Amino acid sequence: MRFVLGIDIGGTNLVVGSVAEDGSALHALGTEPTHSEAGAEDVLDRLVALAERTIAETRRTVPGAEILGVGVGAPGPLDTRSGIVLLTPNLGWVDLPLRQIIHDRLGLTAALDNDANCAVLGEWWVGAARGCRNAIGLTIGTGIGGGIILDGRLYHGASDVAGEIGHTTIDTEGRRCKCGNYGCLEAYASGPNIAMRAREALEAGAESKIPSRAGGDLERITAQTVYDAAYDGDELALEVVNDTAKFLAVGVANLLNIFNPEVVVVCGGVTLAGDHLFIPLRREVSRRAFKPAVTACRIVPGELVGTAGVYGAAKVFIDGQRGRVAAGQTLR
Amino acid sequence: MRFVLGIDIGGTNLVVGSVAEDGSALHALGTEPTHSEAGAEDVLDRLVALAERTIAETRRTVPGAEILGVGVGAPGPLDTRSGIVLLTPNLGWVDLPLRQIIHDRLGLTAALDNDANCAVLGEWWVGAARGCRNAIGLTIGTGIGGGIILDGRLYHGASDVAGEIGHTTIDTEGRRCKCGNYGCLEAYASGPNIAMRAREALEAGAESKIPSRAGGDLERITAQTVYDAAYDGDELALEVVNDTAKFLAVGVANLLNIFNPEVVVVCGGVTLAGDHLFIPLRREVSRRAFKPAVTACRIVPGELVGTAGVYGAAKVFIDGQRGRVAAGQTLR
Repeated sequence: MRFVLGIDIGGTNLVVGSVAEDGSALHALGTEPTHSEAGAEDVLDRLVALAERTIAETRRTVPGAEILGVGVGAPGPLDTRSGIVLLTPNLGWVDLPLRQIIHDRLGLTAALDNDANCAVLGEWWVGAARGCRNAIGLTIGTGIGGGIILDGRLYHGASDVAGEIGHTTIDTEGRRCKCGNYGCLEAYASGPNIAMRAREALEAGAESKIPSRAGGDLERITAQTVYDAAYDGDELALEVVNDTAKFLAVGVANLLNIFNPEVVVVCGGVTLAGDHLFIPLRREVSRRAFKPAVTACRIVPGELVGTAGVYGAAKVFIDGQRGRVAAGQTLR
Repeated sequence: MRFVLGIDIGGTNLVVGSVAEDGSALHALGTEPTHSEAGAEDVLDRLVALAERTIAETRRTVPGAEILGVGVGAPGPLDTRSGIVLLTPNLGWVDLPLRQIIHDRLGLTAALDNDANCAVLGEWWVGAARGCRNAIGLTIGTGIGGGIILDGRLYHGASDVAGEIGHTTIDTEGRRCKCGNYGCLEAYASGPNIAMRAREALEAGAESKIPSRAGGDLERITAQTVYDAAYDGDELALEVVNDTAKFLAVGVANLLNIFNPEVVVVCGGVTLAGDHLFIPLRREVSRRAFKPAVTACRIVPGELVGTAGVYGAAKVFIDGQRGRVAAGQTLR
C-alpha cells in the first residue's frame, strides 16, 4: 500500500499521519504540542522525530507500506515554489527553507503549502467538499485563514497570497486588525475576537454563566468557553455566537457573490457551536447574497476535525507530483 | 480575413463591431442609443439592423471577409449555457432567449455572456490586462460589475453569478444597495452614487463650481460632472473623487487578498478622473492589502474605451467554439 506523509504544523500542535495515496485511510496519526517558544531548531527536531515514529508505525502495521513522500502545511506567508516559509508570527520563523529541511532530515521528497490551503484541500479531497468542482473554505482559529479550490485545484495567485479571506474588509472603518488593515473579518470572528466580544459584554455588566466556566477570571475566557456556554443555553453566549454568525455571513456572502461556489466549508473550533452558528449564518447569507448564488451553494462545517490539514498536506504532495509527471518529469 | 461580430448591449447604448479572429483589428464599429423604453422587440429590431449594417460594411471594406459567428454581451443575470437573459432591470427583459434570437435573425452561431465579463475579457485579450494569467476587472457605470479571468479563461462559478464584485459588502451596516443588501461597494462608488455624494455635500452647504456645470440644477449632476470639475481643480469634486478612490480601494484590496492577481483593471467613466482617482486608489490599496499581493499587482485603467465589451463578446464566441472543438464537435 502506498502512503504519503502529511504534516500539519500549527501554532498549538504538530500533527503527523500517513495518508493512503487514494485518500481512503489515515494511519499512525500522532500529535504533540508545538511549543514554539523553544525555537525553530527544537520544534523541527521534535517534528522530525514524530514523523519518523509515524513512518515506523505505518511500516509496522501495514506490511509492505511504501512512503512516497511528504506534504507539509505551515502557517504563512510562504513561497510554495521555493518551499520557504517567509514569516510565521505565531512560530517566530523567518525565511526558513522548510521543504529542503524536511527533505534532508526524512530523506523523502517534500512539498509545502499554507496550512489553511491544506485544510481546505483535505476537506475537498475526502471531507465536506468532496465531489465539488469549486469550493471555498474558511479555517477559524487564532486567525481566519482561507483556501480556494477551483476546478479541483488549489488556487494560489501570483505570489501565494490568494485565499486570505480573513483579511477582507467587512467594515471600512472597523476594528484594527493585526495585519494593519481595518475592519477585517478576522478582527470580528476569529477565536480570540469571539472571546473578546464576550469579555467586553461581561465588563459592561451582562449576566452570564461564562465567567464561572473560566474560574471567575475573564482573561481565561476562550472561544471554547463561549461555545460550551452556548451549548448549555447561556443567553450571552448565544448572543455572541449569533453575532459571530452575522459577521461571518458578511464574508461568506461576499464569497458567494464573487465565486458562486458549490460549497463553503467552515473549519475550526467555531464549528463546535453547531446549529447555533450555522442556522443564523445560512439565514444571513441568504439575505445578503444573490439568490442564484445562495441556491447553488451549501454552507457546511468541516468533517475532518483535527485531520483536514494532514490529509490536505498529503494531497499537496500528490498533486505536485502529478504536475511534475504531466510536465514530463519522473515520479520518484 | 476571418471576423467575429461583437455585440455590446448596454442600458444606454448598443455597440457592434467586427473583430478580427486574432484580436488585431476592429472594423465597422457602429453604435446607437438603446432606448430600452421602446420595448424588447424594438430594441432587438434596431440591434439586428445595426449588426447587419456592420456585417455589410465589413464585407465592403475587407474583400473576402468571413464572419464566423457572433458574441453578445448583455446585462445579467443570465444563463450562459442556455443563452437566456433571465432578468435585466435596466432593459426590462425577463427570460429572453437572446442567443437563439440573435442566431435566428442573423443566421450566425451565437454565444452570450454578461456585459462586465465581456468588458474584462476584452481588456485581457487586447487591452490593459493582456499577457496576464490571472486578472480581475471592475466596470464602473450605472452599477459596478466585475469579471474574473483565471488561467486565461473567464470564471463563471456554479450558476453564472461569479464576479459580482460590486455587490460585495465593504460596510456591514452601510448604505442600502439596490440589490437588497447593505454596504455594497456599488452603493458607494457607482456613477449615480458618486453624483449623489456630491449632491449631498452641496445640500449641506459645500462651496463648489459643480452646480454651475449642471445649469444650477443639482438633479442634473452626474458622475461625469464631478470628474470634469475635478479636472478643473474644484475642491469638492476632488474630495468626492478622493472618497471614491478610498471606497474602491477597500473592494480592490479585498480582491488582492483573495485573488492575488497580476492586474486589476478599472473600466468605465470613472477612469476619466485619471490620476485624481488612481493615485489615491493605489496608495490606499497598498495600505490595506498584504504586501506580496500589492507588489504582484498593477492597478490600471482600461485601455479599450467604449470597445472593451465588443472585443470581449467576440472573444466569448471564439473561446466557446474552441471549447466545442476540444469536446469533439465541429467548428461551423
